[in-house]
Amino acid sequence: ENACNTAYENGATLAITSELAISGYPPRDLLLHEGFTQACIDNCSSINSKIQLIVGTPLPSGGGMLPYNGAMMVGDGTNSFVAKKMLLPTYDVFDEARYFISGEKVSAITIDGKKFGITICEDAWQNSGKVPSNYERDPIVELSELDDLEFVVNLSSSPFHSTKDLLRRDVAKCAAKTLDLPFLLANQYGGNDDLLFDGRSLAVWPEGTIIEAPPWSEGILMLNLDNPEQSNWLPLDNSKSELQFNEETNIKSKTAELLDAITVGLRDYCVKSGLKQVVLGLSGGIDSAVAACVAARALGAENVLGISIPSRHSSQHSIDDAKFTADSLGCEYMVVDLEDLHQAGEKTLQEELNLGNPVASENIQARLRGLIVMGIANARGAMAIATGNKSELAQGYCTLYGDMAGGYAPIGDLYKTEVYAVAKEINSEAKLAGKKPPISESTLTKPPSAELAPNQKDQDTLPEYEILDEILKFYIEDLMDESSIISNGFEKSIVKDVLGRLERNEHKRWQMPPAPRVSERAFGQGWRQPLASKRIWK
Amino acid sequence: ENACNTAYENGATLAITSELAISGYPPRDLLLHEGFTQACIDNCSSINSKIQLIVGTPLPSGGGMLPYNGAMMVGDGTNSFVAKKMLLPTYDVFDEARYFISGEKVSAITIDGKKFGITICEDAWQNSGKVPSNYERDPIVELSELDDLEFVVNLSSSPFHSTKDLLRRDVAKCAAKTLDLPFLLANQYGGNDDLLFDGRSLAVWPEGTIIEAPPWSEGILMLNLDNPEQSNWLPLDNSKSELQFNEETNIKSKTAELLDAITVGLRDYCVKSGLKQVVLGLSGGIDSAVAACVAARALGAENVLGISIPSRHSSQHSIDDAKFTADSLGCEYMVVDLEDLHQAGEKTLQEELNLGNPVASENIQARLRGLIVMGIANARGAMAIATGNKSELAQGYCTLYGDMAGGYAPIGDLYKTEVYAVAKEINSEAKLAGKKPPISESTLTKPPSAELAPNQKDQDTLPEYEILDEILKFYIEDLMDESSIISNGFEKSIVKDVLGRLERNEHKRWQMPPAPRVSERAFGQGWRQPLASKRIWK
Repeated sequence: ENACNTAYENGATLAITSELAISGYPPRDLLLHEGFTQACIDNCSSINSKIQLIVGTPLPSGGGMLPYNGAMMVGDGTNSFVAKKMLLPTYDVFDEARYFISGEKVSAITIDGKKFGITICEDAWQNSGKVPSNYERDPIVELSELDDLEFVVNLSSSPFHSTKDLLRRDVAKCAAKTLDLPFLLANQYGGNDDLLFDGRSLAVWPEGTIIEAPPWSEGILMLNLDNPEQSNWLPLDNSKSELQFNEETNIKSKTAELLDAITVGLRDYCVKSGLKQVVLGLSGGIDSAVAACVAARALGAENVLGISIPSRHSSQHSIDDAKFTADSLGCEYMVVDLEDLHQAGEKTLQEELNLGNPVASENIQARLRGLIVMGIANARGAMAIATGNKSELAQGYCTLYGDMAGGYAPIGDLYKTEVYAVAKEINSEAKLAGKKPPISESTLTKPPSAELAPNQKDQDTLPEYEILDEILKFYIEDLMDESSIISNGFEKSIVKDVLGRLERNEHKRWQMPPAPRVSERAFGQGWRQPLASKRIWK
Repeated sequence: ENACNTAYENGATLAITSELAISGYPPRDLLLHEGFTQACIDNCSSINSKIQLIVGTPLPSGGGMLPYNGAMMVGDGTNSFVAKKMLLPTYDVFDEARYFISGEKVSAITIDGKKFGITICEDAWQNSGKVPSNYERDPIVELSELDDLEFVVNLSSSPFHSTKDLLRRDVAKCAAKTLDLPFLLANQYGGNDDLLFDGRSLAVWPEGTIIEAPPWSEGILMLNLDNPEQSNWLPLDNSKSELQFNEETNIKSKTAELLDAITVGLRDYCVKSGLKQVVLGLSGGIDSAVAACVAARALGAENVLGISIPSRHSSQHSIDDAKFTADSLGCEYMVVDLEDLHQAGEKTLQEELNLGNPVASENIQARLRGLIVMGIANARGAMAIATGNKSELAQGYCTLYGDMAGGYAPIGDLYKTEVYAVAKEINSEAKLAGKKPPISESTLTKPPSAELAPNQKDQDTLPEYEILDEILKFYIEDLMDESSIISNGFEKSIVKDVLGRLERNEHKRWQMPPAPRVSERAFGQGWRQPLASKRIWK
């Protein structure tokens, strides 16, 4: 509403939101609830805008059926349903065939004598061929057959993953070309649980001009369709980002983008959940150091509490490195000694631990740390964050209810090698800002260790992370099978070990907290439950 | 394979499996993996059957597209793809539009001069109208228009929920009537994570004759199409159940059915995961008592370890009642005193606990118990089971990493009032078998308490369970909104409190272990993530 009126004051005549802006994306089972669609429509109707506004909202389809994923025009006295999404993506993070029915035909309306087409997200994607589905119809082609259109808009909630920006831009270029009209795409910004939206609303002209809003920034993209170069960007947050007229300059380094993405993910999770503070265990290792930096970036260092919980297996450098990060960030820091609890735990479980399974004994330390972090979070009304990464989660090299404890896992979709890259990016960013790099040289260079047993190293159990991550990516992101991975030049026994651990530890992924999704295939939606793998497929 | 040859020895000429029998249902993301569909087909081809066998399996669709959910005929020298599922359910626990493409036309083949139609699960459901989707085509009607068919078969993986048996029977009756032919439905039996399949394969003749296999039993339904009364049931498990010719007698009481369902769920989870033993905390309360009885029923009492972990807030009857259940079942029982750990935990976190949040202090006890149960499970290579029920999970009246810890939650989809009903059923069953009822009178009648604070009762925080469960069912199962629930005669403030707790605690449901699904709407698949509810919808 405010955004509309700011736009109006700046001379706009029409405003467009992202897809399902009124309900958030994805609303999931709320869409099945009595009254939900009506509540969304009522909220749309109550928007007081001085210009015409097209809002993404579910629309009723009548007769107890599922709603449409649609758009409503409100403001300036109007109030009508103007579009229904035709193509419902049902792959990856999308489950729209569960929740919506398809619109039957393309939408075009006329405002102020200008006729334009309205599409919703996926509607524009079939045209580029960049979808895993074949919808057997193409709304962009259907719109291109209409007469007198002056432009086409697209309401999107197109989630981020690495390199998605290039893909989305290709889709918009393709649509503009097919339509031979300007194509305007309004994309969602922000985090919603594990889904991230990078914004980057854009307009593409058929001859190739592109105007793209800055990434990871909330604002209004003011477009002048007749004179693209008079378009501008009105940020609604504190960012000083500027509109990009040259597509090359809007591409951030992959690592800087990852860092922005996970920062927005954690920030929005906290803000939308009404949480101000986060608490995490600071082990002195790279994962918790990066998680602390991301938390400080997302919420301010004053809202981050790092807790060092050394046990008898912790080295002095673990405590020093943890303190270094906390001090550099300027966040609250606390040392809690584990020894009393560790001894009480060992005494209580002595007979069982004498059975000889070393993992049982190691897990006690991890779980006592989880209990301490959760206890302090509960005492303060803060949220604990889990500091695990995707590589260790994939291998089950983590403890349920121990280091996996927490409401959100900010680096949970980053492979370990990406965690190192992000750590270096964080240090560079600090240097550029004239601050002390918060991640110590020792944290960056020492061999990773869970420190749950004397002289334990991750690589006692796992292959080198460079190799592990490559194998994991082939399996998880590229869906390759064992023999294909081996044929890419890895040792058979290593691949078998990695895939074996991946399978044996699926039950852990089933109980993990949400993690902001930055890779092509995140654990979570669609990832199998533990048993589905137990049949034929080994 | 064995089943086929047993069938052959008993004179069968054709055998049919359930849907996707070769891969398990649902295979989920495995279907996207390179080589998976081919591995399934190779496994089908290697089946050595003396009679023709129609096996449910994914079938390739070519060109990198998703597979079909289909059927292959093997055995006796043949090897061909014979059916492709046309209707792909994408609601509730089903996500088939994510993973499969639709078959284009109905399937009919001829064996030994007999021509018959082949359908797969949902294909037969549109005809009865008992689906939430409208597929705009009806394979049963399409088959009814073919000439010379003698019968129609259906390969199903139709999951259980309460009263699903009646629904499935209606669907089969409707299909037989429309086809004017015998309709034979082979249904999956067993548990696969949270999904349960009750078996109950059946055949319906157009004039109304029904033959139904016993529920919760694995075996071969030998059908004589010309003389239905000569059909019989060859169990492959130890059950002595008999074939039912009268549909009334095959209906178990709802509570007995629940008990069978959750027993099969836990048993199959353990068997398929290669786990022999389970460990659980025995509090003396109704939930853990029922969970222990279900575990003993599923795995044998000798594979169940019950641990009583009294704290200073535990009453003597808690310990007595826990011991009563363990002794009556004949399972291993252990008392672990919490005091040392409790004191060490309080000492370690003293300053933070002094901040005054009572939940932080209560959760320490719950989490220390979780740690003890998990520690013993890890030490023995056993699985911990979580003993929570659906009512408390819905309200967040449970502790993350405390009583929610475990690999499986056998009563996690039972409302508290259902837990009481199942408890009484367990006692009746024991009495009938001449055994001591394992759940003590005190456990059945004392007011429920978490015993985490002095004199704490569940009803200090929650409404009476009779009322709570009704409100929860209206919201969760019937998808009613607040005002509709209130108009059903509940106090407004109570409904608001219940729905408020339901919403605030969604993050807990996101991290719960799988629970066997017995209600119409279980938490899990499709249940929203924490944030999706934070927008408009209150």
